[in-house]
Amino acid sequence: MILTVTLNTALDITYRVRSLRPHASHRVSEVVERPGGKGVNVARVLAALGHEVTVTGFAGGPTGRVLRERLADGMPGERSAVGAGEVVDALVPVFGATRRTIAVVDELTGDTTQLNEPGPQITPAEWALFLGRYTELVAGASAVALCGSLPPGVPVGAYANLVRAARSAGVPVLLDTSGEPLRRGVAARPDIIKPNTDELAELTGSHEPLRATQDARRRGAHAVVASLGADGLLAVTPEGRWRAAPPAPVRGNPTGAGDSAVAGLLSGLVERLPWPARLTRAVALSTATVRSTTAGEFDRTTYEELLSRVAVSGEFSAA
Amino acid sequence: MILTVTLNTALDITYRVRSLRPHASHRVSEVVERPGGKGVNVARVLAALGHEVTVTGFAGGPTGRVLRERLADGMPGERSAVGAGEVVDALVPVFGATRRTIAVVDELTGDTTQLNEPGPQITPAEWALFLGRYTELVAGASAVALCGSLPPGVPVGAYANLVRAARSAGVPVLLDTSGEPLRRGVAARPDIIKPNTDELAELTGSHEPLRATQDARRRGAHAVVASLGADGLLAVTPEGRWRAAPPAPVRGNPTGAGDSAVAGLLSGLVERLPWPARLTRAVALSTATVRSTTAGEFDRTTYEELLSRVAVSGEFSAA
Repeated sequence: MILTVTLNTALDITYRVRSLRPHASHRVSEVVERPGGKGVNVARVLAALGHEVTVTGFAGGPTGRVLRERLADGMPGERSAVGAGEVVDALVPVFGATRRTIAVVDELTGDTTQLNEPGPQITPAEWALFLGRYTELVAGASAVALCGSLPPGVPVGAYANLVRAARSAGVPVLLDTSGEPLRRGVAARPDIIKPNTDELAELTGSHEPLRATQDARRRGAHAVVASLGADGLLAVTPEGRWRAAPPAPVRGNPTGAGDSAVAGLLSGLVERLPWPARLTRAVALSTATVRSTTAGEFDRTTYEELLSRVAVSGEFSAA
Repeated sequence: MILTVTLNTALDITYRVRSLRPHASHRVSEVVERPGGKGVNVARVLAALGHEVTVTGFAGGPTGRVLRERLADGMPGERSAVGAGEVVDALVPVFGATRRTIAVVDELTGDTTQLNEPGPQITPAEWALFLGRYTELVAGASAVALCGSLPPGVPVGAYANLVRAARSAGVPVLLDTSGEPLRRGVAARPDIIKPNTDELAELTGSHEPLRATQDARRRGAHAVVASLGADGLLAVTPEGRWRAAPPAPVRGNPTGAGDSAVAGLLSGLVERLPWPARLTRAVALSTATVRSTTAGEFDRTTYEELLSRVAVSGEFSAA
């Protein structure tokens, strides 16, 4: 089982409007709701790839109830897909309400405007409850992904704690967050981090991707996979360094592309694929997510086509 | 008891963001949720004025559950107000989910951008259930307000039906809607309609308020109270015609100002106030709503001050 942690889960709501204009009133023509938060998105992709996956983190209030109902129903579109696994709900109930995120899609321009609620206040007792649950779950996991922002009340060093607990249990751990939680988490020596160029620059002070990636490794991450947006991934690892890029620039909605890359990396890790194959999978999944008509889902045909067309350059380190 | 009907109730959500920019991602700094839909807003003001009021219409899904919980909790701010009455929940449960409305307040400009979901699909069985409930409730009402848009599935002639049922029961009925539901509703001869200038122009084809107001009466409305925005109200009634205006232009958020005016007109009606006093109350309430720091609530001190300062001009008809 792969465990994904989403401390700040979300009910992701997508609105379609004809044209978003500040100060105007808009009739929403379509409303789509689904369980969200980075770790939940990663779990969805892992399940679609046929992995058993468990989600934990927090859920509460009416929005948390909807999120858990949707998780239990299965996430439409993937459930019937070939090889689709199951997402097991191990979320910890909290008093506060799970946040909403609203993505407003402008039909005229295709642009998306995002509104993100901050998330519920987590009490010290709720956090302690989560830590106990996490320790139990990690014991049965083949890999752990720690994903996204921290809701109010969770200590800023939370991910550092969770990284250490996974490493103590001998379970490989990937960390995908930003800012101070990333800085502290990196110092606890996670197996993989997957920052984008902004997050990497914030962590290291360098806007030069290779230099920043190497610096992030020195700060404690065993492997750093930097997301270069449309240019693919740059990986610097103990086994070697590589660049992986899609065959051509793609247009579409980048929502969830980073989460799909995390799912590619994690599934490749537990399947013991060599790094170039993991990166190929990660780039194919994230590109197929950008190309999907539904935000945050990947197009399986595009994914399968891309697997043979992602270009990976680089080399294994001398042993 | 005053009955307000809100077929398309809403969970009204207000977001504060620093500055709304299309295509950007925004962190919401404050989330406020409250029961909404025009008739619910009217009920809230009536209760604050000390009237017993019952709300009916539809509520369903997780958002409907939250709306009803909030109604049952009382609406904070008004409950403790001097003379505050109670809002009784007689909403009819439906399978579909009550819509959300999102008001995004830009902290930099103070502007509000509105996103309105369409509302749940109402089945013929649910509509039939509502009609039965409405007939029972009207029998015990001193006045009825029919407010707002129709959710999908409700026949476009719905308000015409509800106006006729109220008139058969001898209960005065105010209609506050727009478009085709207003056109059909007016033909059923409601006691009062309260269109704004746009709604009036759409109904009559005339952009000249006095002419349009007189035309709306010829179409069937016994009294027409046209809302002229910051300029106050224009009333053409069987008893006479009046203009009522606030003492000075006010700045603020006009959300809910029309609903407050409806509450003023209805409370004045059941208290058998003469028209000039009803209009004074309606203008004072709606101006105090614009001036309130909380969208859709009225500032009681402003309201009480304005009662003696609203200017009403016009005359009673010759008997």
